[in-house]
Amino acid sequence: MSRFLNSRYSALEPYTPGEQPKVTGRLIKLNTNESPYPPAPGVLEVINNQELQKLRLYSDPAASELTAAIADFYGLKQEQVMVGNGSDEVLAFIFMAMRGSNDVIYYPEISYSFYPVYCDIFHAHGVKVPLREDFSIGASDYFNLDGTIIITNPNAPTGRALTLDEIESILINNEENLVVIDEAYVDFGADSAAGLIDRYDNLMVVQTFSKSRSLAGARIGFAMASSEIIADMNKLKFSFNPYNLNRLSILAGTEAMKDREYFEDTRSRIMETREKFVKEMREMGFTVLPSKANFVFAASDRISGEEYFRELRKYNIIVRHFSDSRICNYVRITIGTPEEMKSLTDATRQILSKR
Amino acid sequence: MSRFLNSRYSALEPYTPGEQPKVTGRLIKLNTNESPYPPAPGVLEVINNQELQKLRLYSDPAASELTAAIADFYGLKQEQVMVGNGSDEVLAFIFMAMRGSNDVIYYPEISYSFYPVYCDIFHAHGVKVPLREDFSIGASDYFNLDGTIIITNPNAPTGRALTLDEIESILINNEENLVVIDEAYVDFGADSAAGLIDRYDNLMVVQTFSKSRSLAGARIGFAMASSEIIADMNKLKFSFNPYNLNRLSILAGTEAMKDREYFEDTRSRIMETREKFVKEMREMGFTVLPSKANFVFAASDRISGEEYFRELRKYNIIVRHFSDSRICNYVRITIGTPEEMKSLTDATRQILSKR
Repeated sequence: MSRFLNSRYSALEPYTPGEQPKVTGRLIKLNTNESPYPPAPGVLEVINNQELQKLRLYSDPAASELTAAIADFYGLKQEQVMVGNGSDEVLAFIFMAMRGSNDVIYYPEISYSFYPVYCDIFHAHGVKVPLREDFSIGASDYFNLDGTIIITNPNAPTGRALTLDEIESILINNEENLVVIDEAYVDFGADSAAGLIDRYDNLMVVQTFSKSRSLAGARIGFAMASSEIIADMNKLKFSFNPYNLNRLSILAGTEAMKDREYFEDTRSRIMETREKFVKEMREMGFTVLPSKANFVFAASDRISGEEYFRELRKYNIIVRHFSDSRICNYVRITIGTPEEMKSLTDATRQILSKR
Repeated sequence: MSRFLNSRYSALEPYTPGEQPKVTGRLIKLNTNESPYPPAPGVLEVINNQELQKLRLYSDPAASELTAAIADFYGLKQEQVMVGNGSDEVLAFIFMAMRGSNDVIYYPEISYSFYPVYCDIFHAHGVKVPLREDFSIGASDYFNLDGTIIITNPNAPTGRALTLDEIESILINNEENLVVIDEAYVDFGADSAAGLIDRYDNLMVVQTFSKSRSLAGARIGFAMASSEIIADMNKLKFSFNPYNLNRLSILAGTEAMKDREYFEDTRSRIMETREKFVKEMREMGFTVLPSKANFVFAASDRISGEEYFRELRKYNIIVRHFSDSRICNYVRITIGTPEEMKSLTDATRQILSKR
């Protein structure tokens, strides 16, 4: 630490992103929940020579074409959508300022591990709400709280989802609190709360282009809420980084959002692959939590999570392991192509046979 | 304002970016200091079909190829370079946390109008240091202060630059303070302080790819300093948005930084155009401040700044006007192509002839 960093930031523990290995050649990368499929074909066409020439010009700070495409997809008004440089930036603005009068933010004990880091950097008071015994989120545990509530749905790294009715019950029982539903993984089997926005003015829905839109490398996230909440979010964006989205990502995101057929096709394939994979893993004796995401959370009593993670590495397969004591026996496995999942189950069979 | 925004942010006044009109067809856009020349030819080649397919994968959070190219250009170690989503994000991190123990940040009274907004959003105590009568920054006005110092060099919107000796005198007389030199426009005639980094551990240099690298739309900025300061900056980045640069901007920036010939060629052309333009404007009776940037700051006693701005608009020429009382008689004019500057001087002649 240099002597110039303000002491309030000296104990900051940054987020550790999943490994992004440079050589992806022979590697089966199932550790950061990316899509195994390339972006929609239109994305590859719209980033052409003419658009590359225009990189000399600033991007549209309002990213109007992109917010219009998102609003159209979800049947919202454009002023109900705000875009960020990945949903991480959107979440950062929420933790910084959308925290009511007492700076308290509630989130599940086991969830996106960035939440406590945001609390730390923005000096918010984070309160962890325990999961139920089966790793599910208990909706009633969030009733009548006294601060902002953030819930990942489906939750990560468990993959378990709340129903829309459960989310609605949380909204009804928190009229004075902002309820943020982080729907990074919602397109793989859960229901989006976006349709509730016009009925609940305390709801904000956050999504990303990194998973179901095959654009992790373009860094696009967005928030949907009442136009009043979105105006607040844009006030923060325009006080932090007005041109937060680059020209090419605006183009790519707009195309990806417009191509509904490709979106439906790829997410269906991923869900299909997941169901087959879960069945096979259970047949090998794994405990696999019911997943509505593009990953599964799995554990075996024949091998520890850490060892399984290390053994898979020898087969050039990367998955994700967390050291937190309640989940350290599990690994989180991204759903890749059917071929990639076959390599993983083959490797797993071999690993288990040696024990 | 929604009832969920924390009251500390209720009075926030966002930054107003220069207008980004959507139709650029017949418009001469000289309002946001973009380069009139396209990105280096290599940029157009490196963003190919194969790389667009890879958008499904996250970007490298360390942006190693880009930081290596920057370090190589400036003769620094890679750990002395940190990249941001535009220099605006880099500046945001500085105002948030690199402000010593007393939260005080000094900057010139007239400078980048985002600085007071950053102070506002991050609750820093901003102190404006007056400019001299001729709009220059007086180096000795910054000696022995008690907080972080941020100076744009050359300054905007004046275009006036400090010499390296003057910057060194500020560094020597502020051993306990971080001195940030914001060099967005340095490549158009001023000297970069990057060469002083290994001698002064209280120096941070901030630059951007938006002007001299023709990549405003790619959103790339960077900080250079001691490896200790850069470690602090990265700690902030990894606690806010680890994947802050998208894949295509990393590619584009790396190529742009490597093509020294194109960089030298385009910045020379812009400086040449500027010198001819300044001469012509002075011949028409304008006061033009001596500029080391890719813009000039000009005023005439025959027409107010606001009126001149409005009249140029009728010729489809956009420049920038600021309402601050000390500079409201001036307009800031970006240096475009020789043809664009000729259109502007022709229009100016016509505007003045009618008065």
